[in-house]
Amino acid sequence: MNQTSWTGVFPAVTTQLHQDQTLDLAASAQHWQAQIDVGVSGLIVCGSLGENQCLQPDEKRAVVKHAVEVAAGRVPVVTGVAEMSTQAATSYMQDCEKLGASGFMIMPPMVYKSDPRETQHWFRSLANATPLSWMLYNNPVGYHTDVTPEMFIELADISNLHAIKESSSNTRRITELRNLTGDRYRIFTGVDDLFLESAILGIDGWVCGSGIAFPKENQQLWDLAKAGRWEECRTLYRWSQPLMKLDTHIHFVQYIKLLCQETGLGHEWVREPRLPLAGTEREQVLQIIREALAKRPA
Amino acid sequence: MNQTSWTGVFPAVTTQLHQDQTLDLAASAQHWQAQIDVGVSGLIVCGSLGENQCLQPDEKRAVVKHAVEVAAGRVPVVTGVAEMSTQAATSYMQDCEKLGASGFMIMPPMVYKSDPRETQHWFRSLANATPLSWMLYNNPVGYHTDVTPEMFIELADISNLHAIKESSSNTRRITELRNLTGDRYRIFTGVDDLFLESAILGIDGWVCGSGIAFPKENQQLWDLAKAGRWEECRTLYRWSQPLMKLDTHIHFVQYIKLLCQETGLGHEWVREPRLPLAGTEREQVLQIIREALAKRPA
Amino acid sequence: MNQTSWTGVFPAVTTQLHQDQTLDLAASAQHWQAQIDVGVSGLIVCGSLGENQCLQPDEKRAVVKHAVEVAAGRVPVVTGVAEMSTQAATSYMQDCEKLGASGFMIMPPMVYKSDPRETQHWFRSLANATPLSWMLYNNPVGYHTDVTPEMFIELADISNLHAIKESSSNTRRITELRNLTGDRYRIFTGVDDLFLESAILGIDGWVCGSGIAFPKENQQLWDLAKAGRWEECRTLYRWSQPLMKLDTHIHFVQYIKLLCQETGLGHEWVREPRLPLAGTEREQVLQIIREALAKRPA
Amino acid sequence: MNQTSWTGVFPAVTTQLHQDQTLDLAASAQHWQAQIDVGVSGLIVCGSLGENQCLQPDEKRAVVKHAVEVAAGRVPVVTGVAEMSTQAATSYMQDCEKLGASGFMIMPPMVYKSDPRETQHWFRSLANATPLSWMLYNNPVGYHTDVTPEMFIELADISNLHAIKESSSNTRRITELRNLTGDRYRIFTGVDDLFLESAILGIDGWVCGSGIAFPKENQQLWDLAKAGRWEECRTLYRWSQPLMKLDTHIHFVQYIKLLCQETGLGHEWVREPRLPLAGTEREQVLQIIREALAKRPA
Repeated sequence: MNQTSWTGVFPAVTTQLHQDQTLDLAASAQHWQAQIDVGVSGLIVCGSLGENQCLQPDEKRAVVKHAVEVAAGRVPVVTGVAEMSTQAATSYMQDCEKLGASGFMIMPPMVYKSDPRETQHWFRSLANATPLSWMLYNNPVGYHTDVTPEMFIELADISNLHAIKESSSNTRRITELRNLTGDRYRIFTGVDDLFLESAILGIDGWVCGSGIAFPKENQQLWDLAKAGRWEECRTLYRWSQPLMKLDTHIHFVQYIKLLCQETGLGHEWVREPRLPLAGTEREQVLQIIREALAKRPA
Repeated sequence: MNQTSWTGVFPAVTTQLHQDQTLDLAASAQHWQAQIDVGVSGLIVCGSLGENQCLQPDEKRAVVKHAVEVAAGRVPVVTGVAEMSTQAATSYMQDCEKLGASGFMIMPPMVYKSDPRETQHWFRSLANATPLSWMLYNNPVGYHTDVTPEMFIELADISNLHAIKESSSNTRRITELRNLTGDRYRIFTGVDDLFLESAILGIDGWVCGSGIAFPKENQQLWDLAKAGRWEECRTLYRWSQPLMKLDTHIHFVQYIKLLCQETGLGHEWVREPRLPLAGTEREQVLQIIREALAKRPA
Repeated sequence: MNQTSWTGVFPAVTTQLHQDQTLDLAASAQHWQAQIDVGVSGLIVCGSLGENQCLQPDEKRAVVKHAVEVAAGRVPVVTGVAEMSTQAATSYMQDCEKLGASGFMIMPPMVYKSDPRETQHWFRSLANATPLSWMLYNNPVGYHTDVTPEMFIELADISNLHAIKESSSNTRRITELRNLTGDRYRIFTGVDDLFLESAILGIDGWVCGSGIAFPKENQQLWDLAKAGRWEECRTLYRWSQPLMKLDTHIHFVQYIKLLCQETGLGHEWVREPRLPLAGTEREQVLQIIREALAKRPA
Repeated sequence: MNQTSWTGVFPAVTTQLHQDQTLDLAASAQHWQAQIDVGVSGLIVCGSLGENQCLQPDEKRAVVKHAVEVAAGRVPVVTGVAEMSTQAATSYMQDCEKLGASGFMIMPPMVYKSDPRETQHWFRSLANATPLSWMLYNNPVGYHTDVTPEMFIELADISNLHAIKESSSNTRRITELRNLTGDRYRIFTGVDDLFLESAILGIDGWVCGSGIAFPKENQQLWDLAKAGRWEECRTLYRWSQPLMKLDTHIHFVQYIKLLCQETGLGHEWVREPRLPLAGTEREQVLQIIREALAKRPA
């Protein structure tokens, strides 16, 4: 597989757990397989949605190993890198290379809000850890560090920096990146409920969240946009919006795991410090989910 | 003219001033005429860009009177309503009705950050001031009061509330409004540099800012989107972006007036407390403008 | 009275209204008199708490005229200046000078978020409107324009700029101002529920809000702090805190007018776009008020 | 030593590093000893200032072990707990208990912004990990999770939850906590440049940052406040403010380490992703430091 041609839908998949919070690799495999079945172009494990930060070091590696086996070369397996220190990140990346991962989705340092100089140093240091391709995950809303379009000009000489996951929630960034960096980077959107807005601007891929629970429609959204069938795409997008919005809440992991449970693709169990939803909140989210699923297009 | 069918481009035009800050109605007329020449569908005077808040009560009325004369029935003349008290707003609206205005673009109370109950009361009170059609200008970023999609459901019984100027900078709102209120409202975007993102979602109109300085291309953007010629629209949109961004800065009035000066459609003079740009900032904005104009499509 | 020696408690008093929203000058006078009775050092009418922005131009002037008569030279009458344009502000100030006001509490331009150059120009322009003393009201939280300690160094040559009302809610500013400008300015705090924190840092005065409803205790807080009786001051401050907090909510006008009603010093009627409190919110605020009053020190 | 009586100054000390980023335990010991020499009441290692999040698991344990040896029972050694998962936190705490730590300063989960239910669950789970006393470090500005005074009422039954490090930068919280929870908790302030404001409100301790570089004056500030010598305290506080402010910047670790270097109590080396200061920023911080030190009281 040619690692320098990431494009299409790359779902950020969950790490399925048993109710006692231990890894459920079998259920995870089933969940991942459902994505591959509808034709996604890659799998991203151990992203935010994969609860990366709450897994133990050996668990993350077990997830990657298992995903490589399940994918079996059909799609690239990309893993999130979400560490607080350069050392922890580098060591994780090198282990994943040995386990057969195809590449990385690298986040800025966790917790520390690095300044632009430090941010660039961080990404350069990690880029050197392995020769594998990686996408830079820019999410200043969630992770408090921003990689601006101007900074992407400066980073352009990093040869294995292949793609950008643009999750700033500011779609202007896509046009700015195109105007400033042309086709240097594969641009993925990472914000489900801005998918159509992003697609019309010209993107290469989509790291989807909510759609892992309704992979067929999600893939359809992508295919319609790629085919320029914008009216149909808009209709489907309007249907999906209440579900897509589940991805942009602090509790997005709990919400999307519950959504997966409702569509038969997983369980709602999460790892602490997250707790499964309870009370009114769980009821309200279930109502949103069930209302949307009741109107699911044939 | 049928006031219940606002659609298309409604430029929010400037109030041209002499260097001594007095009204320059002749230059204003020339600026407004340039918009009508390219086929805009309405004129909005005394909006934020028209420096409403810094004009004296009699000056605002003079501007409306003059615009009605210039438009001469060719396009509706809509005036912004930006007052701090219910009394001032009501009295202004009634005067404008007598002056021949076609309708209003009503902002929430200035300064006071009304709660949802008060916000609804405000808009209902003002709706009763005249029978003219109006659009509700929602701009929580600029004016600190938010009218949510849920609130628009509640406001739906106001018969002369015809349109929404959605300027939250959150394009999700457009899909939410469509899902919740269908075609009840004419939805206008008010954010230039989110125009394409908004257009693909299905909108009825555009209250444009920057484009008043390059009205031909601005009208083209709208026409291409309406015709479903999205690729061409995107190309033109990418060109326009550095200019469109001038509309989403605190100094947007100064920036766009300077842009108008560069394209021969006005002067940079503004009313205090605004000051004309100076020093490095003026140089930088001029550079952005001149670089963009140098690449202006034939 | 020597205008260059403002110090002590300057209550920002309410403008009392009838239930039909018209001015109630008699009730206002009673409310103002109650402040003078306990020994305050000045009266501030037409501040934010005086609903300046929602009064008509002639009403504001009527309030000032009446306050000058009520004060009868016993304390200086200072009026807020809260206008959207330089012209409106200047004209208001000149009228108030003729009406016998002692000075002004000037806010930055309303609505427009001026940059530092424009902010300084605004204050210099208004300073020239009359020879009367004035205090600069700095409240970036409420009015979105910030006058930093560095800017106060630059403004120091304005001879009638006598005092600062520091309402940034950042008490560090007081120490910074002292370190940078020494005793050039009379420093007033304008944040009730940071009074003790501000007093220990060394201030000259207090523009109080909530305390206009319990003027005796409020004056006591000031007197205890001035006397260095910090332990007693802290005890009284802890008692007052639930009431002081009413001053730092968006609905502070409604809350404090309701509080005044409960202590017999006014009515809860407010001018639109504000509405009197209703429902649960009114009940909750009443409960806070009544619980605090039940524990009122003898 | 009685663990249930933490009071006084507890400096949050640095972890000294060699230029190659490896631990410098000897320099750390010297730095810690300087604190003990001036009479501090406790030592907090592996806090934010101790670069907890960027140390490897075994390094943190080495720091704690060494600090216990250096303290040698003279003052309690408290360690920060800053982990992304319950498992990592629990395991760290149990190891530290074995190493002889006296207690903990526990932060909310890193990265994940837990809701109030999850936040309480997190703190309860960690409280059960060992019988040692701990303080809850509340810093919503830095760590995005807030423990409100109301939540502290609910947490009051946790027997080894001994103290609160209040770092919300909102001093009102101290009065609210006193009004709502009386003397249930030892209240420490964690915000250097709000020390005097906090002290006047009645606090039990101070987790200081900047002051680790000038421990004598820092201890004096505390002693003067405790003695009610407020005027002298204010004078010293004004002197210290430019240095205290170094603690409330994103680069506070770099700034304070540089400050320590200037006063002979450490080195400026930091662990990646942090980088040592460079260029203009380093010059400006050095200038602030040197100007303040030049005026150091005799």
